[in-house]
Amino acid sequence: MKFIEFLPLGLAAAGAMVFAAAFAREEPQDSLMEDARFYFEPIPEEPPALPGNELTPAKVELGKMLFFDPRLSRSQFVSCNSCHVLGLGGTDGRATSLGHRWELGGRNSPTVLNAVFNVDQFWDGRADDLEDQAGGPMENPIEMGFTHEGVVNTLQTMPGYVAAFKKAFPGEEEPVTIGNTKRAIAAFEATLITPNAPFDRFLEGEADALDQQQKRGLRLFIDSGCVSCHSGVNIGGGQYMKFGLVEDPDEKYRPAADLGREEVTGEEADRYVYKVPSLRNIALTAPYFHTGQAWSLEEAIAVMGRTQLGIGFSGEEIADIKAFLESLTGEQPEVDFPILPARTPETPKGVE
Amino acid sequence: MKFIEFLPLGLAAAGAMVFAAAFAREEPQDSLMEDARFYFEPIPEEPPALPGNELTPAKVELGKMLFFDPRLSRSQFVSCNSCHVLGLGGTDGRATSLGHRWELGGRNSPTVLNAVFNVDQFWDGRADDLEDQAGGPMENPIEMGFTHEGVVNTLQTMPGYVAAFKKAFPGEEEPVTIGNTKRAIAAFEATLITPNAPFDRFLEGEADALDQQQKRGLRLFIDSGCVSCHSGVNIGGGQYMKFGLVEDPDEKYRPAADLGREEVTGEEADRYVYKVPSLRNIALTAPYFHTGQAWSLEEAIAVMGRTQLGIGFSGEEIADIKAFLESLTGEQPEVDFPILPARTPETPKGVE
Repeated sequence: MKFIEFLPLGLAAAGAMVFAAAFAREEPQDSLMEDARFYFEPIPEEPPALPGNELTPAKVELGKMLFFDPRLSRSQFVSCNSCHVLGLGGTDGRATSLGHRWELGGRNSPTVLNAVFNVDQFWDGRADDLEDQAGGPMENPIEMGFTHEGVVNTLQTMPGYVAAFKKAFPGEEEPVTIGNTKRAIAAFEATLITPNAPFDRFLEGEADALDQQQKRGLRLFIDSGCVSCHSGVNIGGGQYMKFGLVEDPDEKYRPAADLGREEVTGEEADRYVYKVPSLRNIALTAPYFHTGQAWSLEEAIAVMGRTQLGIGFSGEEIADIKAFLESLTGEQPEVDFPILPARTPETPKGVE
Repeated sequence: MKFIEFLPLGLAAAGAMVFAAAFAREEPQDSLMEDARFYFEPIPEEPPALPGNELTPAKVELGKMLFFDPRLSRSQFVSCNSCHVLGLGGTDGRATSLGHRWELGGRNSPTVLNAVFNVDQFWDGRADDLEDQAGGPMENPIEMGFTHEGVVNTLQTMPGYVAAFKKAFPGEEEPVTIGNTKRAIAAFEATLITPNAPFDRFLEGEADALDQQQKRGLRLFIDSGCVSCHSGVNIGGGQYMKFGLVEDPDEKYRPAADLGREEVTGEEADRYVYKVPSLRNIALTAPYFHTGQAWSLEEAIAVMGRTQLGIGFSGEEIADIKAFLESLTGEQPEVDFPILPARTPETPKGVE
């Protein structure tokens, strides 16, 4: 899944310089479009292939069942969809999530939509891909609070699941495994893409897909250097960057105790470094940052300008960038709520 | 919605006597079908009309959004679907539900499927209908933990909801009210019916829709007197009955402190009286009883026989009744997961 090409900071800065001259006046349509195509790619209409994990209908359907099934948690009350609500842009709209025993998570729940296009998963990139990620929350004591063994034991008691795993993983003798559980969830999540945002249509040549304010915002987004991190198909999601590159963010946005990627790599150079989040559907996924402490796009844009670029955007500029960001809202996934296999007397009970 | 006709106990007993002679041998097909049609009605293909609450597509769609929206709870973590999971037979598969602040509910979560056919709502019937019921959990401190005012204030901050209420309640100046919130949820829930169970097809004349064991179970269900409470379109849901009519149930099934309908009416005669639950889709909705302490149909049937009828069913009889109950699983509702309106900076934050 690491097929996105990312532009080094220098190149973006060069781009910014080249186009800076064009900024103040209304620029020719094709110049902006050409520039945008240099930095960004549209979301494809079809889900991308996952290496070694073919997206068969049976596997995607099983993954959908698992995604919505609260019995993957110890309490049988929390599902993947509890924190990644598909109707809420794939997030939960909270600063940080609630989970097992009403404990509060440490970081804002990232969206599952288009997550397949991210270079790694989690804010600190501690999972390589969706499959690797999917196993994390099940075992996290403050998320689903369960064990992989518990998940498999639970699934194995339900003939409906045993049949669904057999269909999704044909030829395997014992298909109900944690590996296949994660593979199926990843396959379903890979289908959660949101093509045809106005910005995608613009990239594909529809000049009127963005209005004048959105075009000004896009130009500013490119020329100010936002694009040096937020580029590619996901407009982010492809690299790591220190939160506070130019100026330290307020403690509420970046509390000292959360070390970011340093907790994964052990390198002090990775202190306060996080994966650059995708800006796809960003108008649907407030609040923002890993702390979920910015509740409006205006606030998030202002903080980003100051801390990452050393720029104090004017109110008008913020409004223009916001208008551009709103053009990143794509077609939300249409998902039938799955009918889940019935429990049996052997199925373990939910434990509070 | 109180259009179901219920048979008094005496009539059912008379029925039992009339057919008792036929019990031991294989009876003529049409006798059983005729008898079944006397006690039961099939689930209709289309949702029933709600008095004063027309099921327009816009209102049902709004109701679906509200049903799945966790922002109707104080934490913004709990939705109607948290305890009435549409993929789990409209229940949560727990003994009693978890809710706000991880508090445990007092009674097993009843299914929303076919609930429109129940005479009243809740185990103790404290709500007259779905509309009345829908407001309860929002304000229950251990369920959604919110207030009606809080719900309305939250919804009003989201233009997507304001537009959806306008469409669902055309001509109203201020359509975002708690009354309309409840009406829309009730309208959606009225669509959650499960027609075409094998037993319904049998009632409609398809003699082979039940196998021999299921037919034996149906005969036993009628002749033993189960039918005196579990009759009508919902095979229950139409009257109140003491749990422990003939013999006191074990304390674990009927703890002394939960007084049942006495808590609603104040009448001692209503002590341990509960609404007779529907047996529709019962094979999907373990665990059973208001306490959720019977985890298999076998256990539930044995307890019911003993406590309500004074009958000690044999293992074979229990298996036959269970087979019949499995014929009550209908077509589960097909529901697209709704895309919910985006929050705004004015939308209140979830509070743990």
